[in-house]
Amino acid sequence: MFEKEYDVIVVGGGHAGAEAAAAAANMGSKTLLITMNLQTIGQMSCNPAMGGIAKGQIVREIDALGGYSGIITDKSAIQFKMLNKSKGPAMWSPRAQNDRMRFAEEWRLELENTPNVDFYQEMVSGLLVEADKVVGVRSSLGLDIKAKAVVLTNGTFLNGLIHIGEKQFGGGRAGEKAATGITEQLVDFGFDSGRMKTGTPPRVDGRSLDYEKMIPQPGDENPEKFSYLETPILKTQRDCHMTHTSALVHDLLREGFDRSPMFNGRIKSIGPRYCPSIEDKIHRFADKDSHQIFVEPEGWHTVEVYVNGFSTSLPEDIQYKALKSVKGFENVKFFRAGYAIEYDYFPPTQLKHTLETKVINNLYFAGQINGTTGYEEAASQGLMAGINAHLKINELEPFILKRDEAYIGVLIDDLITKGTKEPYRMFTSRAEYRTLLRQDNADLRLTPKGFEIGLAKEKRLKRMEEKQQKSNEFVNFFRKTSFNPEEMNPILDSISSSRVKQSDKLFKVFSRPKVTIDHMMQLDAVSNFVSSNDYDSEVLEQAEIQVKYSGYIEKEKNNADKLHRLENVRIPESFDYSRLKSLSYEAREKLEAIRPVTISQASRISGVSPSDISVLLVFLGR
Amino acid sequence: MFEKEYDVIVVGGGHAGAEAAAAAANMGSKTLLITMNLQTIGQMSCNPAMGGIAKGQIVREIDALGGYSGIITDKSAIQFKMLNKSKGPAMWSPRAQNDRMRFAEEWRLELENTPNVDFYQEMVSGLLVEADKVVGVRSSLGLDIKAKAVVLTNGTFLNGLIHIGEKQFGGGRAGEKAATGITEQLVDFGFDSGRMKTGTPPRVDGRSLDYEKMIPQPGDENPEKFSYLETPILKTQRDCHMTHTSALVHDLLREGFDRSPMFNGRIKSIGPRYCPSIEDKIHRFADKDSHQIFVEPEGWHTVEVYVNGFSTSLPEDIQYKALKSVKGFENVKFFRAGYAIEYDYFPPTQLKHTLETKVINNLYFAGQINGTTGYEEAASQGLMAGINAHLKINELEPFILKRDEAYIGVLIDDLITKGTKEPYRMFTSRAEYRTLLRQDNADLRLTPKGFEIGLAKEKRLKRMEEKQQKSNEFVNFFRKTSFNPEEMNPILDSISSSRVKQSDKLFKVFSRPKVTIDHMMQLDAVSNFVSSNDYDSEVLEQAEIQVKYSGYIEKEKNNADKLHRLENVRIPESFDYSRLKSLSYEAREKLEAIRPVTISQASRISGVSPSDISVLLVFLGR
Repeated sequence: MFEKEYDVIVVGGGHAGAEAAAAAANMGSKTLLITMNLQTIGQMSCNPAMGGIAKGQIVREIDALGGYSGIITDKSAIQFKMLNKSKGPAMWSPRAQNDRMRFAEEWRLELENTPNVDFYQEMVSGLLVEADKVVGVRSSLGLDIKAKAVVLTNGTFLNGLIHIGEKQFGGGRAGEKAATGITEQLVDFGFDSGRMKTGTPPRVDGRSLDYEKMIPQPGDENPEKFSYLETPILKTQRDCHMTHTSALVHDLLREGFDRSPMFNGRIKSIGPRYCPSIEDKIHRFADKDSHQIFVEPEGWHTVEVYVNGFSTSLPEDIQYKALKSVKGFENVKFFRAGYAIEYDYFPPTQLKHTLETKVINNLYFAGQINGTTGYEEAASQGLMAGINAHLKINELEPFILKRDEAYIGVLIDDLITKGTKEPYRMFTSRAEYRTLLRQDNADLRLTPKGFEIGLAKEKRLKRMEEKQQKSNEFVNFFRKTSFNPEEMNPILDSISSSRVKQSDKLFKVFSRPKVTIDHMMQLDAVSNFVSSNDYDSEVLEQAEIQVKYSGYIEKEKNNADKLHRLENVRIPESFDYSRLKSLSYEAREKLEAIRPVTISQASRISGVSPSDISVLLVFLGR
Repeated sequence: MFEKEYDVIVVGGGHAGAEAAAAAANMGSKTLLITMNLQTIGQMSCNPAMGGIAKGQIVREIDALGGYSGIITDKSAIQFKMLNKSKGPAMWSPRAQNDRMRFAEEWRLELENTPNVDFYQEMVSGLLVEADKVVGVRSSLGLDIKAKAVVLTNGTFLNGLIHIGEKQFGGGRAGEKAATGITEQLVDFGFDSGRMKTGTPPRVDGRSLDYEKMIPQPGDENPEKFSYLETPILKTQRDCHMTHTSALVHDLLREGFDRSPMFNGRIKSIGPRYCPSIEDKIHRFADKDSHQIFVEPEGWHTVEVYVNGFSTSLPEDIQYKALKSVKGFENVKFFRAGYAIEYDYFPPTQLKHTLETKVINNLYFAGQINGTTGYEEAASQGLMAGINAHLKINELEPFILKRDEAYIGVLIDDLITKGTKEPYRMFTSRAEYRTLLRQDNADLRLTPKGFEIGLAKEKRLKRMEEKQQKSNEFVNFFRKTSFNPEEMNPILDSISSSRVKQSDKLFKVFSRPKVTIDHMMQLDAVSNFVSSNDYDSEVLEQAEIQVKYSGYIEKEKNNADKLHRLENVRIPESFDYSRLKSLSYEAREKLEAIRPVTISQASRISGVSPSDISVLLVFLGR
């Protein structure tokens, strides 16, 4: 039936699978997206939102490289917020609420409009492998489909087991079947597999809530967006609402603890630490008698509402009784109960930086199968797996982002170097160089790279270059233009910043913490320069950040450069660590298991100490 | 969790379930729609179209009564056609192609906007029954939900078993789980159950087809619509295309017959006679070497295409090889394979005219569970079950449509009187009074009834009354206004109709077969009357039909009246047929099994002859 060999087969159509298929296809690979249900492509399985702290930066990076998540998010957004705007720009994080149905539909249509993407609906139950190399997939109906590379993005479907109270049943998502066969085969091939757990809160009828008792959470007054391309900006938005649990709610929840699969030993695997179930929160933070709940609309028109913060696998009756005691939820009607789900993952230390597996060539893993949690984490891995699958089969250099180049680089390096025992989520704190990895400059950082590998299109590059050129012009203007103290001092007075005694470059004053672009614009020279050059807000923002944070940015760049020098010290692939008796036992064991490619990677392995690194460097002739 | 008792619980959210919930709720019942997946409410499981011959009339009837199917169809249509326009108006049948995703979304939003409808996502695995009366449902998680009445609309989900070639697996629809528990419980209660089979064709990638080799099937130049309310009329439409199979295609299909579940005995149940699989068509009509295939787009924007006429459960490789040999499909790419599905149904002779079961009070069945096939058949049963559930629990008279009042009446009377051994589909030929049951007058026939029971709203009644009044005015104008032969004869000459010798009423000439409203409008008297009264096309059409077909209509009305006199002869509920030895053995057996309520119903039971009816009439004192 599939006579021709595909270049790339992507298994799964969630955030990871959709990005993987789009990336490989846009680079020119004949790509097949195979999924159990073509109607659930781009499904938001959990909350109807994209972005957030560190995650928003990832979406911007995906967009900058030429991925689709930013575009889809913009097209289906119902609310936009730039989080952390009061902090430094490294912390600014875009977040959108989305219309769940629209989001999935836009993904489906975007993929349909991507040349080189074919679709097929069936369960993949095994891989075709010849001499340590994957050559295709086998469907549950026994159909063999050949390909040069395969990307697995199975999400929570591999042997998925859903728990609610004392009940458990197979399923990949509420109302959907689990997938079987793949784990067993990979274990036979020598892969380690493990189980992880995640969960989701109840969905309820918005008509049954009393929003008067909650605190509105509107979107930004001037909403921005995710994509660096020309996507629509929201003209109207829908509010979210905030409420919170109480000691009473907690007591009611505790009544179900003896029937909780989390506490009676039925769920053995570990769930996402930073997205815990409500019972977990109560259990771990027994002294807190209130937790926040965010009430998120599921779309423009639907009355369905997502109860963020109330993820639970307690029995349905307990979920209901407790939620009814939350302020505003007194008359709540459930659309469906929350549940927990356990699924198979493969510890990601079994992967290379390209997300190709070490055991089977041309096989890539992306998303929850690697032990991550989050749409954004999944999407970015899918993108990188799709890119690298294409590059590999075309015998091109792999595409690897460094830790100082992208959150995506941090994510993948963390995964394959440290592994993860619990669902891995991105945070700004995971990035050593977060001042460099901002949401405002993802295009400047990554679009040239995306263009070079043939993913980002010329239009995207041109927009980036124009922004870069204009902001450079503006920064240079600040560097070379001097101010007049008489004109400057009244402005400084107005914000209680110390006066200047003599003329100096604009740059100098603009670097002061309290001075913003709005203050600088009060100078005729600046406002004339801006208006004569027709700079838009994106350019102004970029220039402001580059001037005001130049010190920090320089410092981090220097640190990163130092590291790159270590990074360049490569460790031979067949290096025999057992010969180095001066390495600690733990280091030797870990180094042999993970086989880092560079000294830098070796240094990030937990259990490998600075003195172990010195031993290695000495031995490698440094 | 569900502390309060619902008035009506509807199990299933397909065409039957959605109409049932809407009807009960709109009449004032607190209604719960419970389904395995809230995201598949209003799903078109098979072809993306509503209406067609006899089925289009049913949709118009549903709309006239105050159901939603017509409104949803109009809102999501991508093409409209009035079929059989060249035949008499009894045969005119509206049909629309729909955007599959839009259709489901519109249903979901319409139900959300209906007061009194609650939603819950879970599998129902049993009924709560007390003393021969249903009092609620039990979910697979063990949740009990109380209600005064329950409507089951399980579609193909009850113990659904999907077949493709030699493979078979449980499922209610591609990618969705089967439902279990209900059949077994009902059989324990004494219900007979059976198995039926249906099937669906492959979905393919429209980009892989060569439409140049096919015949375009555009929509009507002046598209009409389904709802009598103010729904949108299509401004643009998408084409369908026609192609056909060939001897080669048939040979290729035959190569898979030994692996066909239809022919190797694996599928034992009977499928829809008038919607057979392609292998069935080849097998039964061995002398035909070509069958039509209609290529139907799945929506406004998607490239997915439905291959109408190619339903099959042959192995995937055979489906593919054969379809590739169809003209225009040379490079076809599959989105998913066709398949057959077997599911449980309950022979509908176990139902009353209200669709309430005879064994368990307040339990109603609607749709495929009753052995029918088709969205329209399902929707109309759902509507009637929802209406009657509401009426029953409010101790109001049941709402039963007679065979001369609606196709819906014919459908239900056929089902409960004759039963069905194969999926039942509506045809115009099933209706004795099809000249009365036209698509143009469903509102005149049914809206007053829908209003009387509190389902159709006043606005709908007002629109109907206005149309009725205007068309009556117009008909009366034709009856009382005379023409002038000098003005009339040139018109008659132009269409080679014999001349008139003297003045007569307009009605007389208008009754001639060749004379249309357009000809009549050439008379000043008529055109002045129309323009001074501002009659729209619907009024003109109605008046034309009433004038031109008055003879036929009168005759059928008389026949129907005769039958009603028999209809009035009721048979006592506990009537002992065994005493009437002069009844044939077969008649006695069937009458005892079915226990008809009237002589008319008895006369329609297969195996009950006119002489049996005479015996009954004599005995009952006629």
